Amino acid sequence: MKIRKRVSHIAILLFLAALTGFHSAAAQDALPSWNDTAPKKAIESFVTRVTKQGSPDFVPADERIAVFDNDGTLWAEQPMYFQFLFALDRVKALAPQHPEWKEKEPFASLLKGDIKAALAGGEPAMVQIVIATHAGMTTDEFDQLVRDWLSTAKHPKTGRPYTEMVYQPMLELLAYMRANGFKTFIVSGGGVDFMRVFSERVYGIPPEQVIGSTGKVRFEIRDGKPVLVRLPEIQFVDDKDGKPVGIHQFIGRRPVAAFGNSDGDLQMLQWTAGGSGARFCLYVHHTDAVREWAYDRQSSIGRLDKGLDEANARGWTVVNMKKDWKVIFPFEK
Amino acid sequence: MKIRKRVSHIAILLFLAALTGFHSAAAQDALPSWNDTAPKKAIESFVTRVTKQGSPDFVPADERIAVFDNDGTLWAEQPMYFQFLFALDRVKALAPQHPEWKEKEPFASLLKGDIKAALAGGEPAMVQIVIATHAGMTTDEFDQLVRDWLSTAKHPKTGRPYTEMVYQPMLELLAYMRANGFKTFIVSGGGVDFMRVFSERVYGIPPEQVIGSTGKVRFEIRDGKPVLVRLPEIQFVDDKDGKPVGIHQFIGRRPVAAFGNSDGDLQMLQWTAGGSGARFCLYVHHTDAVREWAYDRQSSIGRLDKGLDEANARGWTVVNMKKDWKVIFPFEK
Repeated sequence: MKIRKRVSHIAILLFLAALTGFHSAAAQDALPSWNDTAPKKAIESFVTRVTKQGSPDFVPADERIAVFDNDGTLWAEQPMYFQFLFALDRVKALAPQHPEWKEKEPFASLLKGDIKAALAGGEPAMVQIVIATHAGMTTDEFDQLVRDWLSTAKHPKTGRPYTEMVYQPMLELLAYMRANGFKTFIVSGGGVDFMRVFSERVYGIPPEQVIGSTGKVRFEIRDGKPVLVRLPEIQFVDDKDGKPVGIHQFIGRRPVAAFGNSDGDLQMLQWTAGGSGARFCLYVHHTDAVREWAYDRQSSIGRLDKGLDEANARGWTVVNMKKDWKVIFPFEK
Repeated sequence: MKIRKRVSHIAILLFLAALTGFHSAAAQDALPSWNDTAPKKAIESFVTRVTKQGSPDFVPADERIAVFDNDGTLWAEQPMYFQFLFALDRVKALAPQHPEWKEKEPFASLLKGDIKAALAGGEPAMVQIVIATHAGMTTDEFDQLVRDWLSTAKHPKTGRPYTEMVYQPMLELLAYMRANGFKTFIVSGGGVDFMRVFSERVYGIPPEQVIGSTGKVRFEIRDGKPVLVRLPEIQFVDDKDGKPVGIHQFIGRRPVAAFGNSDGDLQMLQWTAGGSGARFCLYVHHTDAVREWAYDRQSSIGRLDKGLDEANARGWTVVNMKKDWKVIFPFEK
C-alpha cells in the first residue's frame, strides 16, 4: 500500500514537472550564443527527434550518450595544447633538480625557450617530456600540481586562466544536451587525470565521465597508507583509432552524438555515425582569426583535413565559428 | 523572469517531493531481506550520516561513489565463476571447427568434461580458454553470444538462469544506496563486456558504470562499416592490486563505500578506507551451506582469508549470510 501511494505521488510530481519546468525550458532559448544558422537548427532538430516519445527516431534516456573531444572542441588549443604548456612549466620548475637537462634534449631546448627545436625529436621527445613531468608522484600529488597550475597560469595571448578559454556556445550545448536527458562524456587525447581536475567545475562533467589518455599507475601501501603511484609508462592513447576503443572500454555503448574538431576525432565520429537509428556528428571548424584562431588542413595542432572531407561527403554538421557563434569565450559577454 | 519562475516551480516540486516521495521512502524498510542484525544497522547508520546536511560526516551527492565486486558479492560464483561456465559452453560449441582440440590441452580435457585436469595448467590454461572463446569476433557479435547464452543456460545446481542467481539483499542495498544519491559501480575481475550485457537489467547499473577486466580491441572499417574487433590479448586485469588501479583509471575518484567477498577485493577496500572522512567497507562472508555455499579461507574460488583478518582488525562490516540475510536469492521469496 505504501509503495502504491508513493508511486502515485511520484506520478503527480512528474506530471507537474512536465507542466512547469520542462515547458518553460522549451520556451526559452537554450543556445543563446549560437546564431540562428544551420548548425543550431540541426542540433535542435536532432534533440527534438530523439527525445520525443513516439517519434521514429526516439532514443530511450539511458542510451542518450553524447561524446565531446576537449582540446579545440570545448576549450582552445592554440598556440599549443594547454596540457603541454603545463608540462613546460613543470620542466622549468623541476630543472634545478635535474642539472643534466642543460645538456640533454629535449629539455635543453625547452629551457632555452626553443620549443620548436625541442619538438624536432617528434613523438619520442614529446613522450619524454610527458613522462618527466607527469610520473614519479602519487595520483593525489599530481592532482594538486594541476590544481595549483590552473589557479595561477595564464594564457600567453589573452592573459586569462586556461579554464576561461572555454567555448561559451559549447557550454550551452552541454547543458542543453543534459537537460534533454543526455549523459555527456569527454573523449579526448589529453591526459585523463589532467582533465578530471577541472571537468566538473568548468563543464559540469564529473570525473567518471571523462575518458582520455592514461599512464600506468601502481598500488602501494606506504607507511600503512594506500597510494597510487604514477609510473613512467603510457598505458593508453585516446586519439584517432583509440577513441572508439576508449569509448568501448570505458563507456561500453555506442554514442548517439559526437562532437570534435580535428582528424583525431574522425574515428569517434565514424563509430558514432555507424550505429543504427538517429545519429548526430558535428565538427567545430576554427575559422575566426580575430576572436580565436583560424586553422584546419595545414595545422600541426588540431589538423582538420580528412575529417572535413568526410563531414562534407556525409552531411555531418560543421560549425563555422566565425559565422555560427555570436560569442566565443564567456569573458566576451 | 522566465528563469526565476522556473526556479520557483522547481523549488515547489522539490518541497513536495520532500514531503511525499522521500518521506514514504524513509518510512518503509528499504532492506527487507536483511535481518535486524549489526550489518544492516551499520549500513543504515553510515548512509544516514553521510547524507545528512550539516552532519560532520556529510558527503556531497557528487562524491557518493559506491563500488561493488560482482562474483560472490552481487551474484553467486559456485561451483565456478559463471563467465567460465560460459567459456566452457563456447568451447563445446566451437569444437567442431577445431578438430585439433581433441589432442590439445586444456581443450582436450575440457571436452571430456574433466575441468580439473584442464585447469591443471594454471593461469596460462585459463588465459588460453578465455582467448579461444572471447576473441576473434566483433564486439557486437560477442555481445550477442553472451545475450543468447544468458537467455538459455541454466545453473547446474539450481536449474535457474544465471541472472536469477543474484543476491536479493544486495539488490535491495544497490537500490537503497542509489535512492540516497550514491552512484553505484561494479568493479569486478570478470570481463567487462560480459557483465555489461546484463548489469543494467539485473542490477540497475548501466554499462558505463561497470569496470572489469578487458581484452584489447581494434577499430576497423569493414565493407564501409566501422567495427571493433576483439583481439587475442588481455589488456587489463581488474583484480587485487588492479582494482584500485581500475577505480582510478575508470572512475577517477576514490569511493566512499566498497563491497566485496574475497581477497581479490582487499586492495579495493583498503583504497576506499584510506580516504579522508566517513568510509564504509563490507565483506560478504559465504557461511550458508544449505541455502547457498559455505567457503572462505581454503576455497580456490572466492578465497577470503587475508581479507577476513583485515576486516576483523579494522572493524569493517562482515555479513554472515546465514545469520544476516532472511532471503538469499529472489526466487526463494
